[in-house]
Amino acid sequence: MMKIDVLTLFPRMFDGVLTESILGKAVQRELVDIDVHNFRDFSDNKHQQVDDYPYGGGAGMLLKVQPIDDALMSIAESHPETKKRVVLLDPAGVPFTQQVAEEFAEEEHLVFICGHYEGYDERIRSLVTDEVSLGDYVLTGGELGAMVMIDATVRLLPEVLGNEASAVADSHSTGLLEHPHYTRPADYKGMKVPEVLVGGHHKLIDEWRLKESLRRTYERRPEMLEKIELTEQMKKILAEIERETVDETENNSENM
Amino acid sequence: MMKIDVLTLFPRMFDGVLTESILGKAVQRELVDIDVHNFRDFSDNKHQQVDDYPYGGGAGMLLKVQPIDDALMSIAESHPETKKRVVLLDPAGVPFTQQVAEEFAEEEHLVFICGHYEGYDERIRSLVTDEVSLGDYVLTGGELGAMVMIDATVRLLPEVLGNEASAVADSHSTGLLEHPHYTRPADYKGMKVPEVLVGGHHKLIDEWRLKESLRRTYERRPEMLEKIELTEQMKKILAEIERETVDETENNSENM
Repeated sequence: MMKIDVLTLFPRMFDGVLTESILGKAVQRELVDIDVHNFRDFSDNKHQQVDDYPYGGGAGMLLKVQPIDDALMSIAESHPETKKRVVLLDPAGVPFTQQVAEEFAEEEHLVFICGHYEGYDERIRSLVTDEVSLGDYVLTGGELGAMVMIDATVRLLPEVLGNEASAVADSHSTGLLEHPHYTRPADYKGMKVPEVLVGGHHKLIDEWRLKESLRRTYERRPEMLEKIELTEQMKKILAEIERETVDETENNSENM
Repeated sequence: MMKIDVLTLFPRMFDGVLTESILGKAVQRELVDIDVHNFRDFSDNKHQQVDDYPYGGGAGMLLKVQPIDDALMSIAESHPETKKRVVLLDPAGVPFTQQVAEEFAEEEHLVFICGHYEGYDERIRSLVTDEVSLGDYVLTGGELGAMVMIDATVRLLPEVLGNEASAVADSHSTGLLEHPHYTRPADYKGMKVPEVLVGGHHKLIDEWRLKESLRRTYERRPEMLEKIELTEQMKKILAEIERETVDETENNSENM
């Protein structure tokens, strides 16, 4: 069973996420064991202080090395046998991607360290194996980042996803954005399901889905097309989509 | 006061995040008003079903239009006066960035729609103003994405961040990664604070910080340097860093 430890100053932030839905079920079914620790408990300071002023001046407080170091040692003592991957949530880290999630899913023991609106003492970086950033935006702390990484990782573990959940083709796992989906009713307030999907001709449906998947990727995230190996069929369809896009643009200009 | 509504099938996932830390305090201080709704309550189906099989076949279930449409209409009726930005959390959406957070922070009323491991009926897209993706990775649902976007947005609202929290220069808000920070002790198990920071010479400290901020960005995220306007001083320092990096590489090869 995968072991995950989280170091945070706000352990209660994790309450809802670790008990609900797929992650909650994975914990309940003992497919993953997640412990959330308040690293304030590891402070050797009598006031349980975990931060201090920065050297060189400036406003703001910084997380000290000692509580993090001692919390990590305590985890190492409790699990001497596991190979650990220790992840610092940090905006200066490597951007988190599906590939990183797949790597994490192969590990036996993950430890996430969450800072909270303050900076880290630089020496904390020497205690970790990875520095990872959730994305190019600023959050109030690393907690939400840890939750996202845990969710993306745990859903890849064996038996976590049921069939109904895993069967829908996922954007980003195929390298293309998903084609449009439709369910009943066939007509909702005048918005209709494309006829090909109602027709029941499977070959035509598959072609339509591939084409619309390529079209959506081409229109919204063209750079994703450069990262996958295109089959001859895909190249042919893309050429079609390009022609259609040009035609549309020309029609629009003519109508102006 | 900013109004935020969230539509989800797992409202309890939000429990910890909306009551703890900065977001929790912002809610408590009435700087933002956040309501989480279970859109299952809006299903017109006697079994409160919110999903159905996809047209054209395939495994997996899709969220139906009707419950989302009715939930949005109910929000519109409760708040007829607000200008709403309705955000669908979707892997095929525009990637979320700090710029999107800044845009969201200017709005008066945000509505987030979270799907959960299933796909959406395409017609749901016609009900929203924005489709946004948290990043290029697959999650079990949109809930964590909504939490991240809410956190990134709310921290930008007036009065939400205290001085101590906002004062530390944030990676990504300046366009550069942060320079290293250090706090006491000056020596932790042999790991020392750089002498310049202990010296108290403010001009040298500022120069060191700018250089290390540029160095970290150059080494880890060079593409970020292309997106900001570099001052003459920055260009000079970057040239220095490049020379130092070349020297280091040469020294390393000589030692091999």
